Amino acid sequence: MTKMLKGIAASDGIAAAKAYMLVQPDLSFSETKIDDPEAEIARLNDAVAASKKELEVIKTKAAENLGDEEAQVFEAHLTILSDPEMLDQISDKIKNDKVNAEAAVKSVTDMFIQMFEGMTDNAYMQERAGDVRDVTKRLMSHLLGVTLPSPALINEEVVIVAHDLTPSDTAQLYRKYVKGFITDIGGRTSHSAIMSRTLEIPAIVGSGSATDDIKADQTVIIDGINGDALVDPSDAELKEYQQKADDFAAQKAEWAQLKNEQSVTADGKQVTLGANIGTPKDVEGATDNGAEAVGLFRSEFLYMDASELPSEDDQFEAYKQAVEGMNGKQVVVRTMDIGGDKKLPYLPLPEEQNPFLGYRAIRISLDRQDIFRTQLRALLRASAYGRLAVMFPMIATVKEFKDAKAVFEEEKAKLVADGVKVSDDIEVGMMMEIPAAAMIADKLAKYADFFSIGTNDLIQYSMAADRGNEHVSYLYQPYNPSLLRLIKNIIDASHKEGKWTGMCGEMAGDQVAVPLLAGLGLNEYSMSATSILKTRSLLKKLDTNKMKELADKAVTECETTEEVVDLVHKYTD
Amino acid sequence: MTKMLKGIAASDGIAAAKAYMLVQPDLSFSETKIDDPEAEIARLNDAVAASKKELEVIKTKAAENLGDEEAQVFEAHLTILSDPEMLDQISDKIKNDKVNAEAAVKSVTDMFIQMFEGMTDNAYMQERAGDVRDVTKRLMSHLLGVTLPSPALINEEVVIVAHDLTPSDTAQLYRKYVKGFITDIGGRTSHSAIMSRTLEIPAIVGSGSATDDIKADQTVIIDGINGDALVDPSDAELKEYQQKADDFAAQKAEWAQLKNEQSVTADGKQVTLGANIGTPKDVEGATDNGAEAVGLFRSEFLYMDASELPSEDDQFEAYKQAVEGMNGKQVVVRTMDIGGDKKLPYLPLPEEQNPFLGYRAIRISLDRQDIFRTQLRALLRASAYGRLAVMFPMIATVKEFKDAKAVFEEEKAKLVADGVKVSDDIEVGMMMEIPAAAMIADKLAKYADFFSIGTNDLIQYSMAADRGNEHVSYLYQPYNPSLLRLIKNIIDASHKEGKWTGMCGEMAGDQVAVPLLAGLGLNEYSMSATSILKTRSLLKKLDTNKMKELADKAVTECETTEEVVDLVHKYTD
Repeated sequence: MTKMLKGIAASDGIAAAKAYMLVQPDLSFSETKIDDPEAEIARLNDAVAASKKELEVIKTKAAENLGDEEAQVFEAHLTILSDPEMLDQISDKIKNDKVNAEAAVKSVTDMFIQMFEGMTDNAYMQERAGDVRDVTKRLMSHLLGVTLPSPALINEEVVIVAHDLTPSDTAQLYRKYVKGFITDIGGRTSHSAIMSRTLEIPAIVGSGSATDDIKADQTVIIDGINGDALVDPSDAELKEYQQKADDFAAQKAEWAQLKNEQSVTADGKQVTLGANIGTPKDVEGATDNGAEAVGLFRSEFLYMDASELPSEDDQFEAYKQAVEGMNGKQVVVRTMDIGGDKKLPYLPLPEEQNPFLGYRAIRISLDRQDIFRTQLRALLRASAYGRLAVMFPMIATVKEFKDAKAVFEEEKAKLVADGVKVSDDIEVGMMMEIPAAAMIADKLAKYADFFSIGTNDLIQYSMAADRGNEHVSYLYQPYNPSLLRLIKNIIDASHKEGKWTGMCGEMAGDQVAVPLLAGLGLNEYSMSATSILKTRSLLKKLDTNKMKELADKAVTECETTEEVVDLVHKYTD
Repeated sequence: MTKMLKGIAASDGIAAAKAYMLVQPDLSFSETKIDDPEAEIARLNDAVAASKKELEVIKTKAAENLGDEEAQVFEAHLTILSDPEMLDQISDKIKNDKVNAEAAVKSVTDMFIQMFEGMTDNAYMQERAGDVRDVTKRLMSHLLGVTLPSPALINEEVVIVAHDLTPSDTAQLYRKYVKGFITDIGGRTSHSAIMSRTLEIPAIVGSGSATDDIKADQTVIIDGINGDALVDPSDAELKEYQQKADDFAAQKAEWAQLKNEQSVTADGKQVTLGANIGTPKDVEGATDNGAEAVGLFRSEFLYMDASELPSEDDQFEAYKQAVEGMNGKQVVVRTMDIGGDKKLPYLPLPEEQNPFLGYRAIRISLDRQDIFRTQLRALLRASAYGRLAVMFPMIATVKEFKDAKAVFEEEKAKLVADGVKVSDDIEVGMMMEIPAAAMIADKLAKYADFFSIGTNDLIQYSMAADRGNEHVSYLYQPYNPSLLRLIKNIIDASHKEGKWTGMCGEMAGDQVAVPLLAGLGLNEYSMSATSILKTRSLLKKLDTNKMKELADKAVTECETTEEVVDLVHKYTD
């Protein structure tokens, strides 16, 4: 009989394929005393040989399917497995301590991992700890005779079933064969969910028990539109979902025609649909999906993909590449948002009880002006190559904005005095993600050129609920009237000063939120690139006056999230 | 020359006395091999004997000055020092390992501490770990020949100088001799600051470097009104401060006359001044200081001073005692606010990245209704013995309030059905401490009988800044226009529905805030009992219409905290 699982719809689309269990096998073992060290060392050598053979295959496959960069990690694994120092130590341990190979492997590799992790001043060596960990797992799987999943070797269409997907898991997935995926944990804003939208793979997250309920090779239908998964479906069900998949494909084709159109409502009101990007490489995906701007360029990648603070020139090149890639369309760069859940190995931050309420983003930038000024100079120089805007994250008070802006103006004046070319009309705005700032948006609008609402943080702080904490996830309520009122306050305040407001959180591409935001008068919607065309299509169907009426009612009459959602459906269905 | 230190004024008043350095001595040592174990054991025994002798004196003094309860902790220390098991193990270690006594003491006591701390299902035994730690320090100080400060032995007037004061430090302070204190760290809401106000001892916290800048026995003037400390003052300065102290004493005498008066503004508008209390014992201090209500009874003490969940009867007795003690005046009990920084050894809570944004207060109560219902039944039963009100902490949405109120009504109906006497007019309100709730105060006012603004949390969440994190302490801005607007929104919403609003955070007794709050129409001010008379005196001088004008200007015109403070001074000086 068909089994039905419910989860959170993370990425649109329908898929049906055999289940591939991306599940860690049990690698536990007991330490035992052995009598014949030579035989045990032979076992070890066999396992090493088998691991190396496997890694060679994976490396070749990865290079073919994913590119040389992804393949390099396996080259690193092979290097470790060829390191005589580590292997000799393991053999010695077997000989001297008369323990089984598993125990010797664990003891020696643990030591290497600890050593690498201890190199806190060398991010490169610290990363090697992860490699040793991966290699150990593979070696152990061969010693124990269990199979380690190797997603890079997948050579037929599959639906990936996993507890969660890490960045390194997703890096190994070959799009051609991965038709969909379903995970046990995660929410709409978790890494795996964001990844699934970027890759345009139908996905369900937070199913609770997919890894228990699904067995390898069972057929699984993933309905990424509703969040339903069907295991072992009947022929009739398969047919029904094929129809749904065809309809969705047809709809996507229809959306694709909107790529070069403007974003206008049914009554002709124009807005801007932008993309959120993480690196200059993402610009291509943004323009391919019809982005009219980059509403949020997270500059953190420059800091996180590095082993030391990025230089002014390195940053300049990245910003320049992004603005040039957008070819005259605006690119809003958010200055460094480090701290909170984002740490840098080379920039020690204080240990904090509540990092989300701590030393992060503009609070660090205003304190560590050396770092801040380097970034601002890079941004100012890049402004000569396109339409660049700058915004400051985590502004809570007027004083913070004025202080940050003053530093910006100082660096600008210095560059101009030095004869460096800098654009004359760089808009300098701020993220609206702290309730206190939203409450005095009218005051801030006098100084900021624009606002960009960061919904994830704004919801988290307004509700006093960590967005990553499952015990309070019921309070992540984007449509709660309290939040809509804050958003209205922000938008109205900006308009009163002749400024504009954008939104760069998940909510901007949310199909229930868009009608409300249109009614509240949002000017720019910035989202995952793959949501842009769908949103453009939705906006085309909305009448501004009707949406204004909807938003007014939601803000003045509704008491709860549920009432708001019902109201939206009444106005749009 | 006189040295001047600046800190945060934590508790009103002026004091001058010799400095008593409540500073941990350096107890570090090197492990060394010894040749003569018998001599080393003799050293150990001498140190034990000296420690015991010292503890006997401290115990006697503590019993005389502080009471038997405080003396008991030293009795516990003596018991540990007489325990042959621990001492024998230390001697054995000296003999077998040939190490010095310091190393043997550390090794054995560490083991005991670990063992006690490991008893996670037994809060009593866990606390013993702290006792062993204290005893070890004393023993070590005698072995190393350094002096451990023993505040209980102070027998002359002193000003305490410390890095920070822990609850156990303050428990050992004998009021008669402690004229004031100054600490390196802490803010107006830290434990030491709250304690200093409760004890009515002039105090300065957060001076940064008092323990470095002051030497033992130097004369120190503590100006707890302005937050200034003078080290080694001249005679002229001493005289000047004596005058200031006399003026302050005169003012206090004047305030004392207001004890039985009502709290009215210059133009006759009446408000309520209440006290925040932690246990029923605090009721006496509240009424002694002229409290017209208990605006906040923190019910946590019932949970934190216990080794298991408190029974319905135990809670009933505590609530009954408090309402009876207030003799017809209202007592607002806040239901359990556990989580965040408050943990219970017998109630395991999830490990959280950001506990202040996590599973706490009403979020736990609605989830663990067994605990919640027990508390509500105890409260309902106590309501028959006085004027009791109930409020729920950390309400963020209308749904949460309605859900909590429904549980309350269910338990009430059950008790009534069982013939238990319950008051007919228990007001059921909520804390206003989450920005989202403040934004929809108009909706919540339809259901809640009253609001009580919790400023510490409201500021923390509005500003997205942990109030305990020194790196973002600059964002703790009670007078920021953003916060005043939230407060105005709350008060106006309650009045529109014919309800009332109180405030039970530190801000309610703050002399800069009170004029603003009077202008905003706050109905009840609840504070440390010792601030009540001062606030009553201040209110008598304020004209409501003028304060309204002040508050209006602050809310509509001011952009920053500094502008608000200037405005208040303009209106009140």
